[in-house]
Order: sequence, then structure tokens, then C-alpha cells
Amino acid sequence: MEVELLEDLAAASRILADQGVFDAAGHVSMRHPEHPDRFLMSRSLAPALVTAHDILELTIEGESLDPRGRAPFIERHLHAGVYRHRPDVMAVAHGHSPTVIPFSLVNAPMRATYHNTAFIAAGVPVFDTRPQFGITDIVISSFERGTAMAEALGDKSVILLRAHGFAAVGPSVQAAVFRAIYTEINARVQLQAMALGQQMATLDEEEGRLADAMNLITIGRSWELWKRRVTP
Amino acid sequence: MEVELLEDLAAASRILADQGVFDAAGHVSMRHPEHPDRFLMSRSLAPALVTAHDILELTIEGESLDPRGRAPFIERHLHAGVYRHRPDVMAVAHGHSPTVIPFSLVNAPMRATYHNTAFIAAGVPVFDTRPQFGITDIVISSFERGTAMAEALGDKSVILLRAHGFAAVGPSVQAAVFRAIYTEINARVQLQAMALGQQMATLDEEEGRLADAMNLITIGRSWELWKRRVTP
Amino acid sequence: MEVELLEDLAAASRILADQGVFDAAGHVSMRHPEHPDRFLMSRSLAPALVTAHDILELTIEGESLDPRGRAPFIERHLHAGVYRHRPDVMAVAHGHSPTVIPFSLVNAPMRATYHNTAFIAAGVPVFDTRPQFGITDIVISSFERGTAMAEALGDKSVILLRAHGFAAVGPSVQAAVFRAIYTEINARVQLQAMALGQQMATLDEEEGRLADAMNLITIGRSWELWKRRVTP
Amino acid sequence: MEVELLEDLAAASRILADQGVFDAAGHVSMRHPEHPDRFLMSRSLAPALVTAHDILELTIEGESLDPRGRAPFIERHLHAGVYRHRPDVMAVAHGHSPTVIPFSLVNAPMRATYHNTAFIAAGVPVFDTRPQFGITDIVISSFERGTAMAEALGDKSVILLRAHGFAAVGPSVQAAVFRAIYTEINARVQLQAMALGQQMATLDEEEGRLADAMNLITIGRSWELWKRRVTP
Repeated sequence: MEVELLEDLAAASRILADQGVFDAAGHVSMRHPEHPDRFLMSRSLAPALVTAHDILELTIEGESLDPRGRAPFIERHLHAGVYRHRPDVMAVAHGHSPTVIPFSLVNAPMRATYHNTAFIAAGVPVFDTRPQFGITDIVISSFERGTAMAEALGDKSVILLRAHGFAAVGPSVQAAVFRAIYTEINARVQLQAMALGQQMATLDEEEGRLADAMNLITIGRSWELWKRRVTP
Repeated sequence: MEVELLEDLAAASRILADQGVFDAAGHVSMRHPEHPDRFLMSRSLAPALVTAHDILELTIEGESLDPRGRAPFIERHLHAGVYRHRPDVMAVAHGHSPTVIPFSLVNAPMRATYHNTAFIAAGVPVFDTRPQFGITDIVISSFERGTAMAEALGDKSVILLRAHGFAAVGPSVQAAVFRAIYTEINARVQLQAMALGQQMATLDEEEGRLADAMNLITIGRSWELWKRRVTP
Repeated sequence: MEVELLEDLAAASRILADQGVFDAAGHVSMRHPEHPDRFLMSRSLAPALVTAHDILELTIEGESLDPRGRAPFIERHLHAGVYRHRPDVMAVAHGHSPTVIPFSLVNAPMRATYHNTAFIAAGVPVFDTRPQFGITDIVISSFERGTAMAEALGDKSVILLRAHGFAAVGPSVQAAVFRAIYTEINARVQLQAMALGQQMATLDEEEGRLADAMNLITIGRSWELWKRRVTP
Repeated sequence: MEVELLEDLAAASRILADQGVFDAAGHVSMRHPEHPDRFLMSRSLAPALVTAHDILELTIEGESLDPRGRAPFIERHLHAGVYRHRPDVMAVAHGHSPTVIPFSLVNAPMRATYHNTAFIAAGVPVFDTRPQFGITDIVISSFERGTAMAEALGDKSVILLRAHGFAAVGPSVQAAVFRAIYTEINARVQLQAMALGQQMATLDEEEGRLADAMNLITIGRSWELWKRRVTP
């Protein structure tokens, strides 16, 4: 595996902290490029501080393969669940952005407010731990909770976690980061649009599909700008 | 043509990125000072990175005259359409500011909330690609779409693009930049005013005309401050 | 007159720009400490750039005494009007903060949301140029308009100007700056409180009087912090 | 007593200023680790400037033990009241965050919007000085007012002060700082959630208890990031 991949994955953590999507928590992972039943993810560490040396290799059952004393995140099970259920997904980002959380608390489905957030047009489910797991600390901290969340995600690109945060997935680290950032921006735009009026001419599903394809082509322009800010 | 003109046009891109109106996309153009059937615009590049060397010369049909391997933006057709239909316009700025987009989604016309945004008092149309072009990726990516948008703009200074962004035009690069920045600020002010009450004592059309004339005289004070921030 | 006074007045302009209350426009003035029928105010210049060398001396009729080629602001008449009508006022700040403008557009009187904004508890009038001056560019650009605005201010500490901005006055440059900054913050707090509920337990007039007296004593702590940020 | 404790307490003041929870006022204190009837708190000074040399030792009656010319804050009585009534509390933070104040003005109880703010699920009382003390400057400036506020706090982790600010308490300086920061963030999230809909699936009391226990374990990750920003 090329070191550049690890460095991009580490940069992804720092980018999401720099862009205000992550605080002292939050993590990004990628499926192993050679072993689809493994994935790569930082050890438990503030995302702003992650470097390539902090990346662990885990099985999609959520077991660390070569920890060497490095503790994994408890919520590796969230990532593992997605990799088990979605063979098309190559990267996952999970954070607790205060801007997104309101949409996890109320009955107001997220909608795609503009072309940059086109991946939202397919729909954004909300996952609540209570029906299956009862009263808990709401963390996705087990194989079973990871499975349940991945099932709720279905074939979508983003899922909200009630009173907790969200996860964005994609065909590359760049795409998962792009979608995490624009999930947050979409939350801000939609909140303001809903304050102006209830009838919103958001993107429909087919417009969203076409615009998302365009975004995946031009994503490098955003990635380079974001990465530049967190590269010493 | 003087190099200073190209440097101002390049600075305009960096200013709009620095002021938060542009993200990794967004572009500014100016009509060619000697050939009114041509215009100048950056190659496809993140606006924060544009320098005078990145400026292309294009016909108002949207064809690049001397690309030398430099790819133009797809949305050059948006700019070209305006230059074809508005002989008075000398510069165009187009971006996707999250603050402005809510007004492109709902039935809440933008109004001029204070003297700095006086150019809005004449009215701000909203352009929707669907009636003429059906389900698309909503990008202004062809001669025909550029024409349709320019016709929707009419004789106004700003137009909103549904679920996409906005374009601001003016008699100079400085004026187009000023209007792009204050379109965003007006969106923020109007959103807050509408949260307080539905009856707003905004500027009427004639007050707007008088205040806009004053703004065009004092615009250099803002331009110098903004340019200073993006000049190495 | 001591040079330190001029340097504080120049710093006041830079502070209000640094704190986001001023943009490329906005100005602060002080009554001349030895000649109460004169006042001191920057020449027409972006407030972020003002130094002691830019300060002009003007009569309270609005005439510049020693311009030496330095153009005064048109809106010196706003300041002059206040000094003519309010002998207790020693300093005036005028700006166009986007956060404050919503309250100038709708029928929602500003109220004192917490002790730092106690000076608002006495009431905040709104001045509209239309009843006396008809359709204009709304700028306070003449002796007569300055008089009309000062009369609308009455004995208060802040006045809003419809679709334009606001002016804050006080017994010292430090107090006028403090009130300008906390007028903006109060606008933000009140907007959010009104979004939560219409019944607000704001400070009443007597609580405001007591808390404002306390603020005037401890104002130096804020001033030193703000000045430090704009002093090279 | 170890110097590291004093340095952490001084850093706590700078952290809360850096994170925007404190302005030129605001203070943090800790119970003396060896003398539970004493506490440690900065002299009257802008919190951004506090160092270990500025820390005073006070009795829980609010008297300074070794002032050496260093003036204490008037509101030391707020801290003293809490230490007298809550033996479990080891640290107190008090500030005037504009984001929190709206919830002190209206009848909209704070609720725990996500796991980071789980300490709010137990309830957040609002303290109003008027019923007991009548019309005042609303400052917690006496033994009696400190007692009244501490009684209103009861066994909770946060209390709002009407038209004034809030206080957060905890089992360590790190916990009080964490709770002060996330009280502010919760205010922002809840304000936005309430704009979207009145039915909010916030954390219930038992979920809050479980999630708060988890937060207290992982708090060091946030603390290190925050401290790094304010350590020269």
C-alpha cells in the first residue's frame, strides 16, 4: 500500500477538523485497497492531530490487526458496519457537527438545497438507537449497533444519528470528506430556507443524481484547497 | 491591454474567495476593454489561486481564443450570455454562496435592506432551468442556457439561480465584486429582518437608485481594503 | 491637547473595524476637550487604516478648520448634530453593522438583553429620513439632516437609522465604542431570544440604569483588550 | 499545592476566552485541593490575560486570604456560594456568553441536544435576582446573592442567570470548562432545532447520565486541544 494513501487519510481527519465539521472527536476511515475485508482508521486521537503513523488496520468485524499499543476508537464499529453492508463504499466519515444535529432531533427531512449537496437528494435517513437498544449512552460501540446503523443507512450517502451526529460515505476518501463538509453546509442552508418559507424548490432525485456525478468529477479542486490548509 | 487590469481581475477572484462568497468554485470576468465582443476570465481553477497568468481571452460566443492548454470553466457560457445581452455590463461575478441560496429556493423576493445593497432595490429575478431545459445537472453549461439566464436577468444587477447560486453584474470589476459581496450580506440581513417581522421598511426603487449612485463613487474605499488582504 | 487622546480616537476606529462593527465605512468622533464647540474626527478613510495623523478638527456646524487637503466624511453632519444638541455627549460612533440593521427595518424595539447592554434599557429610537426629507440617498449629509437625527436621538444612548445603520454616543470615546460593540451584540442576542419566545425578561429601565453605571466603571478592561488587538 | 494546578486554572480562563465563551469578563475557580473551605480564583483581570501569578486564595465566605494588593472579582460571591452548598463541586465557571443569554430571558428550558451536552439532561434552572433582591444591578455581588444562586442551582451542573449569563460546575477544572463550552454549543443547537420544529428527540435524563459518564472519561482529548491553543 502506498504511503500517499495513508497521508491522504490522515489529512482527511485534519481537514474535517479545520473545516469545523469535527471537534475534538470525529474520525474518517477507508477500505483497505488490497483487502476489501479490512479498513484503515486512526487510533483514538483528536482528529486535528492525526498523521499517517496513527493509522490502524482493522477487520470489518472491528478487530485491530496490529495495534502495537495504539488504542482504536470505540466507534470503529460504526465504520465496520458500513464496510460489511455496503461493498461500494470505500470511505466513511463520522462526526458531531452542531450544525447538523438539529436535523437529527426533529421531523424535518434533509433536502438537497444546491448542486454541491446533490448527494442528499436521494434522501437522508435518521438512526435512533432506542427502538433496538433501549436506553444507552447512544454511542455506536458494538458490532450489533454498527450493523443496525448500516442497515438504516441502506443505499444512501449520508445518515443522521439522533442526538449524536452523522456519517457520510463515498467511493473515495475525497468523496466522503466532500460529503461530510457539504452535509454541514446543507444543514445551514436548509435551516435558513425553512425560516423564509415552507415551500422549497430543492433538487429532485434525478437532478441530484446528475449534479452529483458532476461533483465527483470536479472534487479534486476542493480537496487540494482543503488539504493545502492542513499540510505543514 | 494593461497588465494592471489583468491583475485586478485576478485579485477579484481571490477577494471573493477571501470574503467567503466563493468556495472552491466561483469566477469573475470582465469585458475586453478594446474588443467589446470578447471577455477575460480565469481558466478552470480554484478562485483563491488565480493570478494574472491564468486569465483567458474568450469570445462572447464562449470560445477560448488562445487556450495554450489551459481549460476554460464550463460556466463561461453564463458570462458570455450576459455580455451578449447587456452591452452596459463590463464585469460579471458568479458564485454559490450558501447564504444567498435560500432566497433561490423559496418565494421570498430579495429586497434592499440598506444603502450598501441599494442595487437590489430594482429587483432580483430568480432563474430556474427546469421550464426550458427540463431535468438537468442545473449547470449553465451551454450557449442556450447562457442566453436563457441573461434574458431572465433583464436590466437588473443581480440574478439568483435556483438551487445553484447567483450572478452579479456591473459597470466595472470593482462594482461586480462589490455587488457580489453585498448580495451575500443583504441575504443575511434580510433573513434576520424577516425573522423579526414581515413588514420591512426597505429601500424603495428610487431611494435605491440614488444610494447606488453614491456607492459607485465611494467603491474604491472597499476595493482597496479587500485587495490589500489578498495581495502578497 | 495630548497626542494620546488622538491616538485613542484613531484606535477607536480600528477597534470598531476589528470587532466587525465597521466595514470599509464607519467613523468615531470626540468633542474637543478644550473647545466644546469643536470636535475631532478622521478624514474620509477606511476606519481600519486611521492613525492620529488623519484626525481633523471641525466646528459643531460641520466645517473643517484646518483640512490641509484632507477631505472630511460627508456624514460629519451626523456627529455635528449630536454635539450641538447633547452637551453631555463627548463621543459619537456611527456604522452600518449588518447585525443591527434588521431592527431599523421592522417594528421590533431593541431591548436590553443583559447587563453589558444596559444602556439600551432607556429605549432606542429609529430615525427615518422620509417624513422630513422625502426620497433621498438616506445619507446624513447636511446640517438639517444632522439636526433632525439628533432631535430623534433625544436623551438616549443609541439611535437606529432606517435602512442605514446606527449611532452610539457616550461620555467618553471608550464608552461610545463599548456601546457600539454591545449594540451589535444585543441585536444578535435579541434576535435569538425572539426566535425562542415573545415574552422576554429583559432589563427594565431602572435595572438598566444601575447596571450601566457599573459598566462605565469597568469599561477599561474591555478597552485594553480591544486596543491591544489593533496596536502594532 | 502543585504549580501545575495553578497553571491549569489560569489556562482555563484563557481557554474560555479563546473559545468565545468569555469576553473581557468571566472567571473560573477551583476548590483548594487541600483545604475544602477555600477556593482559588484569578484577581480581577480580563480572562484572556490570566496567568498562574494572578490566582488568589479565598475562603468560601468570599474573603481574600493573601491579596497583596491584588483586587478580587466582585462576583467571587457566586463561586463562594456554590462551594458552600455543593461539597461535590471542585470547579466553577461563570460567563456572559451572548449565545446562552436568550435562554435566560424566555420560557424555553434548555434540553440536551446531543451526547456532548449530556450534563444538561438533568435540567437547567434559571435564577432571577428580582423575587429576593428587587431592582438591582443584577450582579452576584454579596454573600446573600451567592447563597440564593447556589440554592437555585440545587444538584444540577449548569444554571442560567436571567439577563446576565450562566455558571457551570463540575468535579474538576477540566469538567467545568467542558460544560461551559458545551452549554454554549447546546444553546446554538437547540435554537436551531426549535426553529425547525417544536418536537425534539433530545436525550432523556437516563441517556444523559450514561453519556455524561462517558464524556467525563474522554474529556482529556478536548482539554489538550483547547489548552494547546492558549499555551505560548
